[in-house]
Amino acid sequence: MPIKSRIRTIPDYPKEGVLFRDITTLLRDTTGFRITIHKLINRYSGKKIHQIAALEARGFIIGSPLAYALNAGFVPIRKQGKLPCAKISQDYESEYGQDRFELHADAIGRGERVLLVDDLLATGGTMEAAGALVRRAGGEILECAFVAELPALGGRERLEKLGLRVFSLVSFEDD
Amino acid sequence: MPIKSRIRTIPDYPKEGVLFRDITTLLRDTTGFRITIHKLINRYSGKKIHQIAALEARGFIIGSPLAYALNAGFVPIRKQGKLPCAKISQDYESEYGQDRFELHADAIGRGERVLLVDDLLATGGTMEAAGALVRRAGGEILECAFVAELPALGGRERLEKLGLRVFSLVSFEDD
Repeated sequence: MPIKSRIRTIPDYPKEGVLFRDITTLLRDTTGFRITIHKLINRYSGKKIHQIAALEARGFIIGSPLAYALNAGFVPIRKQGKLPCAKISQDYESEYGQDRFELHADAIGRGERVLLVDDLLATGGTMEAAGALVRRAGGEILECAFVAELPALGGRERLEKLGLRVFSLVSFEDD
Repeated sequence: MPIKSRIRTIPDYPKEGVLFRDITTLLRDTTGFRITIHKLINRYSGKKIHQIAALEARGFIIGSPLAYALNAGFVPIRKQGKLPCAKISQDYESEYGQDRFELHADAIGRGERVLLVDDLLATGGTMEAAGALVRRAGGEILECAFVAELPALGGRERLEKLGLRVFSLVSFEDD
């Protein structure tokens, strides 16, 4: 378990009863980081992906090396107020409150094949919003890729109901 | 000018009189993104870097593929309230106000060689704070690497006075 064993679990963060899965211990470990990115590259190699669209902020860390290795472009899906040009936006309910994602209106070309990337799949609310933005921009979503998944929170079912494919490298069954 | 010509300039953002340099147009362009990362990999290849420490959030996009390609770990330097474990913090004055960076206290080992990475060097305030954090954690800073630099804002001189080496791929002399 080169990936799962390197993810640190913090009890009661950011609030009581939550087991926070902290990937920083995976990222700082050269072997762990390499294996994580390598496995994702292997999965998507040859899939003719035009753009990697990654969710702010930890999704950037996973999505960017994928874009480089797969010879794709990189598109950031950002929190409100961070993008300087004409944009489209989508509100969502996260695990911890209400929030808004934004995407530059010209970031994704019509019909471009897009891989959505984030670090962790929990309730799926943030990825649902990101997927809606990419579709409104005209992108075709190949899949939503995560490093880790918390199946008890139902994110996979929520996304699959919307016609989105879901892939994660590891799963924490005990959440 | 495969890099500079792909960076979009937004006048009067986020406030009047500022020319905002928007790298999203560089990132979404497959060639532009590849050349950017490739040039940085070439510069730091063989330099025995243990950790790439990148500044939230755009620095993550540049630093993460570097970490992967250079076989280094990746350490995020984050805005206040984002890291779940014991951390050290540093306040700084940014171009647009007061802010705080945080670093996990155990993220960098004593004597580890660290490359600091961000997208843009303006006044140097954010990188100064990041450099202070890495030094307090015990890291040895090899250099501060940027995609672009705005020389008129004096960031390079500010960082060099602190004993930090500075490198940027392109420079906007007209700011």
